[in-house]
Amino acid sequence: MIALFDSGYGGLTVLKPILKLLPEYDYLYLGDSGRAPYGNHSTENIKMFSEQAVEYLFKKGAKLIIFACNTASSTSLRHVQQKYLNGKDEKDRKILGVLIPAAQKAMEITKNKRVGVVGTKATISSKVYETEIHKLNENVEVYGKACPLLVPLIEEGWQNKPEAHSILKKYLRDVKNNNVDTLILGCTHYPLMIKNFKRILGKKIRIIESGEVTAQSLKAYLQRHPEIEKKLSKKGKREFLTTGDTETFKNFTEKYLGMKIKTPTPIQW
Amino acid sequence: MIALFDSGYGGLTVLKPILKLLPEYDYLYLGDSGRAPYGNHSTENIKMFSEQAVEYLFKKGAKLIIFACNTASSTSLRHVQQKYLNGKDEKDRKILGVLIPAAQKAMEITKNKRVGVVGTKATISSKVYETEIHKLNENVEVYGKACPLLVPLIEEGWQNKPEAHSILKKYLRDVKNNNVDTLILGCTHYPLMIKNFKRILGKKIRIIESGEVTAQSLKAYLQRHPEIEKKLSKKGKREFLTTGDTETFKNFTEKYLGMKIKTPTPIQW
Repeated sequence: MIALFDSGYGGLTVLKPILKLLPEYDYLYLGDSGRAPYGNHSTENIKMFSEQAVEYLFKKGAKLIIFACNTASSTSLRHVQQKYLNGKDEKDRKILGVLIPAAQKAMEITKNKRVGVVGTKATISSKVYETEIHKLNENVEVYGKACPLLVPLIEEGWQNKPEAHSILKKYLRDVKNNNVDTLILGCTHYPLMIKNFKRILGKKIRIIESGEVTAQSLKAYLQRHPEIEKKLSKKGKREFLTTGDTETFKNFTEKYLGMKIKTPTPIQW
Repeated sequence: MIALFDSGYGGLTVLKPILKLLPEYDYLYLGDSGRAPYGNHSTENIKMFSEQAVEYLFKKGAKLIIFACNTASSTSLRHVQQKYLNGKDEKDRKILGVLIPAAQKAMEITKNKRVGVVGTKATISSKVYETEIHKLNENVEVYGKACPLLVPLIEEGWQNKPEAHSILKKYLRDVKNNNVDTLILGCTHYPLMIKNFKRILGKKIRIIESGEVTAQSLKAYLQRHPEIEKKLSKKGKREFLTTGDTETFKNFTEKYLGMKIKTPTPIQW
């Protein structure tokens, strides 16, 4: 099956477009809500959390794991790829992130070669988007802006309150002043405030959501790799695991995905 | 010497009144800024962090450790007291928290026997203030309100912005509706927004700051325990340790305490 790993709910904004584009496969979603948000944890801790998740998901039978969390992708993706994908038995396994698809999309879109990235402190200070974008074109200017209040606001359920809009406006002032024509939402929570982003940025700045581009990138990947694709089960199953409160998780997920789900399986590390 | 342990900067609101009331002693302040805020970590992690801090500070020669963080006090104080204060060699050591002094003060002040507590999610869901207050008087009603956005706002330096005031107003609406006459600021960060609290609550609700009452409680403790007091060095030294960025820590601390300090010693676990 295909597994998605996220620090909590944010990865649902990646799962949703994937389910729409590729509904036939079986999916397993692991939300580490008990330790969310990752943005406040040390790099060392996030690496440890990521290892635990990867080991757990491979044991559960996942063939393909998508790191649906920007913070985990930026701090730990390369690390877990090196640790878990080098053995002989592991050649049919794959771990994918959300960074490269977004970086590629930004290169397609930008005209003035000025790209903005918003994300948690950990993601922005890692400069990982800058690195990925410069691999594609080193003449592109990348402007990163950490927005540490957005995840707490969204987790409080206050993303539609006027205070959230006003705080977002303050964050985006610098982004606008830097004259970018493309903005990567470098945190999977942020699409939950997409209306606010669009209202503040207007039509001049194109917004890239990780979820959308990751879904397209996954589809292309499966077309390129039939040897992995044919091993994936296709019964349309959806299973959810969480380290946090199962009821809260179920309610939020059903509301966001617009479908009924079985009560998530609680897991403890 | 006397050591203070906090998840970051918040404990400075405890150190400041202590330095004012008891300036003669040597103080060592450990701010675990690299892993702040604790409010978002699991209980298990916070216990581990607290153990590391206690071991480190006792090794550095501390006789008395004050847990200047409500989250650490509420989740781990009893645990570290049991683990580190039971041996024969440890009878001259002491670990104190910020909870009991605030609970006692609330009992002195309240007339209608309705007390409010604001704090992080971890502190409020632990119901530790309720427990301490009920040990003193079980007929007192305790109303707890988690305010998870305040610490991120303060750490962003946005505590004086209108959005912060407006968010605080939303949080305090429930507190006011519960008709309390006394409010415990159950997070050492919150005194950095004290003006906003006072403006919103008016004069009918008395506010208790952990720092003030902990300083008074420490003074009384040292008077009651001359055997510990006489072992404390009294050269007026102040030393700072941090797991975060030393320059940021120095700037913030100097500004807040209104005094020059030596560059904090960086530590890594």
